[in-house]
Amino acid sequence: MHLYRNSDLRVNAMTERIKNFLRQRRGDGPCVVVDLDIVQDNYLAFERALPDTRVFYAVKANPAPEILALLASLGSSFDCASVPEIEMALAAGAGPDRISFGNTIKKERDVARAFELGVRLFAVDCEAEVEKISRAAPGAQVFCRILCDGAGADWPLSRKFGCAPSMAPQVLEHAHRLGLVAHGVSFHVGSQQANVEAWDLALGSAAAIFREMAERGIVLSMVNLGGGFPARYLKDVPGVPRYGEAILRGLAKHFGNRIPQTIIEPGRGMVGDAGMIEAEVVLISKKSEAEDEIRWVYLDIGKFNGLAETMDEAIRYPIRTDKDEDRKTPCVLAGPTCDSVDVLYEKTPYELPVSLSIGDKVLIEACGAYTTTYSAVAFNGFEPLRSYVI
Amino acid sequence: MHLYRNSDLRVNAMTERIKNFLRQRRGDGPCVVVDLDIVQDNYLAFERALPDTRVFYAVKANPAPEILALLASLGSSFDCASVPEIEMALAAGAGPDRISFGNTIKKERDVARAFELGVRLFAVDCEAEVEKISRAAPGAQVFCRILCDGAGADWPLSRKFGCAPSMAPQVLEHAHRLGLVAHGVSFHVGSQQANVEAWDLALGSAAAIFREMAERGIVLSMVNLGGGFPARYLKDVPGVPRYGEAILRGLAKHFGNRIPQTIIEPGRGMVGDAGMIEAEVVLISKKSEAEDEIRWVYLDIGKFNGLAETMDEAIRYPIRTDKDEDRKTPCVLAGPTCDSVDVLYEKTPYELPVSLSIGDKVLIEACGAYTTTYSAVAFNGFEPLRSYVI
Repeated sequence: MHLYRNSDLRVNAMTERIKNFLRQRRGDGPCVVVDLDIVQDNYLAFERALPDTRVFYAVKANPAPEILALLASLGSSFDCASVPEIEMALAAGAGPDRISFGNTIKKERDVARAFELGVRLFAVDCEAEVEKISRAAPGAQVFCRILCDGAGADWPLSRKFGCAPSMAPQVLEHAHRLGLVAHGVSFHVGSQQANVEAWDLALGSAAAIFREMAERGIVLSMVNLGGGFPARYLKDVPGVPRYGEAILRGLAKHFGNRIPQTIIEPGRGMVGDAGMIEAEVVLISKKSEAEDEIRWVYLDIGKFNGLAETMDEAIRYPIRTDKDEDRKTPCVLAGPTCDSVDVLYEKTPYELPVSLSIGDKVLIEACGAYTTTYSAVAFNGFEPLRSYVI
Repeated sequence: MHLYRNSDLRVNAMTERIKNFLRQRRGDGPCVVVDLDIVQDNYLAFERALPDTRVFYAVKANPAPEILALLASLGSSFDCASVPEIEMALAAGAGPDRISFGNTIKKERDVARAFELGVRLFAVDCEAEVEKISRAAPGAQVFCRILCDGAGADWPLSRKFGCAPSMAPQVLEHAHRLGLVAHGVSFHVGSQQANVEAWDLALGSAAAIFREMAERGIVLSMVNLGGGFPARYLKDVPGVPRYGEAILRGLAKHFGNRIPQTIIEPGRGMVGDAGMIEAEVVLISKKSEAEDEIRWVYLDIGKFNGLAETMDEAIRYPIRTDKDEDRKTPCVLAGPTCDSVDVLYEKTPYELPVSLSIGDKVLIEACGAYTTTYSAVAFNGFEPLRSYVI
């Protein structure tokens, strides 16, 4: 309970700082405001929870230059999905030794460009990718991503990234034979992972690969524990310290006294709860005159200008209004575009105050991750989400 | 059959013109190329099929200035979802009398801005929206959108837009009492609607509303037949003439000898088959060494940089390669980002040649609609889809 109470205090403090900013804002239209103090708190919490683990911030979660610069100054490393993300991390002050090209799907010319920029750490999950790296980044370190079932995550990862653990030794041996450094193994337990034990099974697979490689005469040295650390949306989640404890237990259980180097790649866990969106109620209506007809509440933000992660109603954001003391009734919540998929919550309606009116502002919490860059360029003519980092 | 043969010839002709352009292109990365000749053919086909109907192109499908300018010069009107779309239509040469503000969800200040720009035709689906328009666009024409079940559409419209037909007379009478012109009724039978009879039921509802309003002493004059006209993806669809015939039959059946003014709002049907995406194979791999393991083919285009409409595998694009004569086997097809939802076809795998290699180009057909503006700003650092209109 202690952790949550702390977290509540923190969220309230954030609310005040961001609310002050919003009171003075002159612009029109929805925006997200990210509070760097919270990002710093989160970084330090990861460091404390896993003191021997290097933190590689997943740039894709929010690549705002101010966030990257803060994290670079705190000593963070960076997990990059593309050459532009590598360039952003470098521009923020991180040396290339603090950058991992973590996408398993890379064009060979992008590998070459990253290598030119000094990057020496690459993700792979098959022999074809190893071959690209051996040609375009000779001598670099590679880690092999393995599949992991992601049970317990709000946003399970499917099979897109990684190979079966049984295939990993062959991929890593291939790298070794082609002159690369077979550096280690990575996995991802699934985004917004609420089960602190999710890492245990994957660590078991990783340890087995370490043993198998040792038998082949190749010594692996690193386990990339991936991301998956949750932000706090409406559903409660454990705090970072509990993830740290569970991971340390798993490492000890599977690797004994030969604990490998470890890295983590928090994205959502680093910036998710540091951002808040302000939006406006555009329309409230009913579809018929029936007594029990549900209200539809339309905001000026939706799936195409910031809230893409409401897809399948996966992420349920906390929404605050100035009228939260009033009685609440369920609503369907939708975005402003002429697109029928631009509905945020319909299968599980959202409770909002009966007194909510057209023109009212709403605050949507925990919007620091996967909102700005997910926005569509100009869908229906609506501009992408504006972002302020304070 | 005759229609399909024509259509095949047309698609092949388009292929050649676009292929010539692509052969000379120097840029890197995926792009969409739109052929204005096809857009013109499509516009003329709608005019021929429904000679007494005004065509309002749904700008949101593809707002490229060259497309808007061509359609404006052909005499098209424009269905706009936002003030920026209205400004684009005006910039393309359409007068405000050729513009409909067709979004049922509008901020009052955006209604005022549209009115200032000369727009006099607005969509509504509830009394609250009528009230905004009466204040911000006094005396304007409004049409009331009614719900319609969308059965038969690949992308059904849910209940986001429109009210129950039984509520429409009250909404329109409210408009009349507030000094607006109660102009008519609109509906949308669902995007990519393959059933030409889909309009019949909705026309019946519209006619009933006309009768009810006449009893209240208010004469409606217009039926907005909406969009829904399909593009030709992998699944065969009827040609525009068959839609025209079915709609004319429906109008005669429900309105007898008092046929109202009509408008249509094609978007996908106007530009969908006029565009083609060129993309590149980034990686081909398998997840394990099992004999029957399926290939994963990763392209440099995915859900976040152009192919958002593969969501739920709703739209199945035709994909051409230079190796289509070879034997084909099923693949999972995925995009290039570090996002597990960025998978195009997995539940129903896609047949591609066994000889397909990393670095090969692929052509994705019928990508003229809902690709460019649906692109994310910079997700994972990847730039939005580039567009060329020729």
